[in-house]
Amino acid sequence: MRAAIMRGNRIVVDEFADPVPRTGELLVRTRACGICGSDVHMLERHGDNSPSPAGFDVRGDVVMGHEFCCEVVDYGPQTSRRIKAGQLVCSVPILPRPEGPEFVGYNTRNPGGYGQYMRLSERLVVEVPNGLSAEHAALTEPMAVGYHAVELAQIKPDDAALVIGCGPVGLGVIAALRLKGVHPIVAANSSPLRRRIARAMGADIVVDPAEASPFAAWREAAAGGWPDPGPNLPGWLVGSPYRPAVIFECAGGPGLIDQLIAEAPQDARIVVAGLCHGPDTFHPLAAVHKEINLRFSNSYTREHFATTLRLIGEGLLDARPMITATVGLSGVAQAFEDLRARRQAKVLIEPWRN
Amino acid sequence: MRAAIMRGNRIVVDEFADPVPRTGELLVRTRACGICGSDVHMLERHGDNSPSPAGFDVRGDVVMGHEFCCEVVDYGPQTSRRIKAGQLVCSVPILPRPEGPEFVGYNTRNPGGYGQYMRLSERLVVEVPNGLSAEHAALTEPMAVGYHAVELAQIKPDDAALVIGCGPVGLGVIAALRLKGVHPIVAANSSPLRRRIARAMGADIVVDPAEASPFAAWREAAAGGWPDPGPNLPGWLVGSPYRPAVIFECAGGPGLIDQLIAEAPQDARIVVAGLCHGPDTFHPLAAVHKEINLRFSNSYTREHFATTLRLIGEGLLDARPMITATVGLSGVAQAFEDLRARRQAKVLIEPWRN
Repeated sequence: MRAAIMRGNRIVVDEFADPVPRTGELLVRTRACGICGSDVHMLERHGDNSPSPAGFDVRGDVVMGHEFCCEVVDYGPQTSRRIKAGQLVCSVPILPRPEGPEFVGYNTRNPGGYGQYMRLSERLVVEVPNGLSAEHAALTEPMAVGYHAVELAQIKPDDAALVIGCGPVGLGVIAALRLKGVHPIVAANSSPLRRRIARAMGADIVVDPAEASPFAAWREAAAGGWPDPGPNLPGWLVGSPYRPAVIFECAGGPGLIDQLIAEAPQDARIVVAGLCHGPDTFHPLAAVHKEINLRFSNSYTREHFATTLRLIGEGLLDARPMITATVGLSGVAQAFEDLRARRQAKVLIEPWRN
Repeated sequence: MRAAIMRGNRIVVDEFADPVPRTGELLVRTRACGICGSDVHMLERHGDNSPSPAGFDVRGDVVMGHEFCCEVVDYGPQTSRRIKAGQLVCSVPILPRPEGPEFVGYNTRNPGGYGQYMRLSERLVVEVPNGLSAEHAALTEPMAVGYHAVELAQIKPDDAALVIGCGPVGLGVIAALRLKGVHPIVAANSSPLRRRIARAMGADIVVDPAEASPFAAWREAAAGGWPDPGPNLPGWLVGSPYRPAVIFECAGGPGLIDQLIAEAPQDARIVVAGLCHGPDTFHPLAAVHKEINLRFSNSYTREHFATTLRLIGEGLLDARPMITATVGLSGVAQAFEDLRARRQAKVLIEPWRN
């Protein structure tokens, strides 16, 4: 098959061995696949034969791509064939194997959606409902990350949200917050393109952190309007005079958690959906004084993945504003450049186009 | 009045100016006051004219003591006098003043319970119910810290608890967990004395971390007994095979949060009630992979303080096993030595005894 391959520190279009479905697996034809920020990171950090991150084996030709929609083509041994050939499906990018789970797209063995064919686990695929397009359905994976983070936040009616970072995860968080009726949603990003998309996807207030403090904007929007519960009493004893703060860290990077703790109001819940590789430093006493709740969020559950696809199919989650380009295989290398330079938000690959 | 005074890096018994109640304040006679680990820490770290920690001013004679029970003696201006003279009361150790809140016991201005008299805010005192003794009521403050931490944990029926550290905070956590019917409660401490008290206050399993892993003990006790929800699927996708883990960090110190994250099971809630001064290092990615919930707990709310006193009065929280000594003023200096050497758990001062 043809594929956009990570070879060393470059993306090249070349032939890759057709995947063969194993026990319980389906052969699928990729219809659309998003480029994830982690893919860009992987090429930058590990494409040049540097040590692979834990759990991944990316030394050699790798076909990345874990945000995909595809159609069923053929069946491996011991499959129920419950899903008809031609049916559009999505899946969490995991292959359960007797020797343990394997990732789709981050190793030399299991090609992801940057190639024309993949193999997927029959028991993990979910059918695309309601005539939803493959392009929109391919956004299920990144949107599920945002939906899951919002589910973990246990949103309550009075919550006022602050979203730090408007990459695809932050945008997914904004869409899920809007679905749950949260207002205000304050969002911060340094890119005008991403701020525009954040607004289109449901943010009430968008801030360029180079120009204004996202926390000041949040405080203005989240002022409670009720009397101070304890004049002249310390915040830790009587709580916050603002509406409950739920903050989503969707940017990642060292020092950010410490900064959020320093600027957050009393009793804030901070959902950490951004990735910070390596060790990080923070001040526990500051978190204690404010009784911060740090909730670390990882991807999604199978339920949240399936729910996200259903909500997209029902028109309740609209992810399309985040798509800024669709490319064939020959456009993938340039798309990586554009994503690195933040000239794009979400780029979709259609691997049957050149 | 007589008081055990922090003077430089020593505790001395001497005269201290009688406090005069200000607007809205009561004059009270101290009946019993516990020595807090923070008091021992304060003497060690800041008693020798080193810089005071933020919010405290401990340069000069300081009468510490914020875990007290006392009786009402007299009334300052603009008090309602709703509580009769002679009534036993407890209070959060805060004086709300027009210029902002002041702490009782950690500055040169507002003597705490190591002295014979204090002034307290009339609107913050809580009456001691049910003929409860002053000694037992004096444990309200440290027990409220544990009760509050358990409230923040939002205990659910299936939770299995692990308590790291069996100082007064950890012991208060154990008592509150027992009150809520949590089993198993696994507790870890290196001191045989504290392990004995932990068991008396409700721990099901106590572990010396020098001899056995508290986490291994927890896993053994919290094995679910249900089938693996996702054979050959990663933990982040399908959750933990154990009962829900709620871990209480009641020891404090650098590196401990990172260690707890490294050893905790998938989806653990970690309530941080121990204090770590200064910066600390941890690995966010490990917390993300396990979807850890880090809940920082600070002291208590007014409601939880009052509830704790009521529960002690009703016999539902029994704090007495943690009292290992009761001393007069002349015994305070030695008690500090004993606490530093971990030869005692909770020491009560009766400042009308020598």
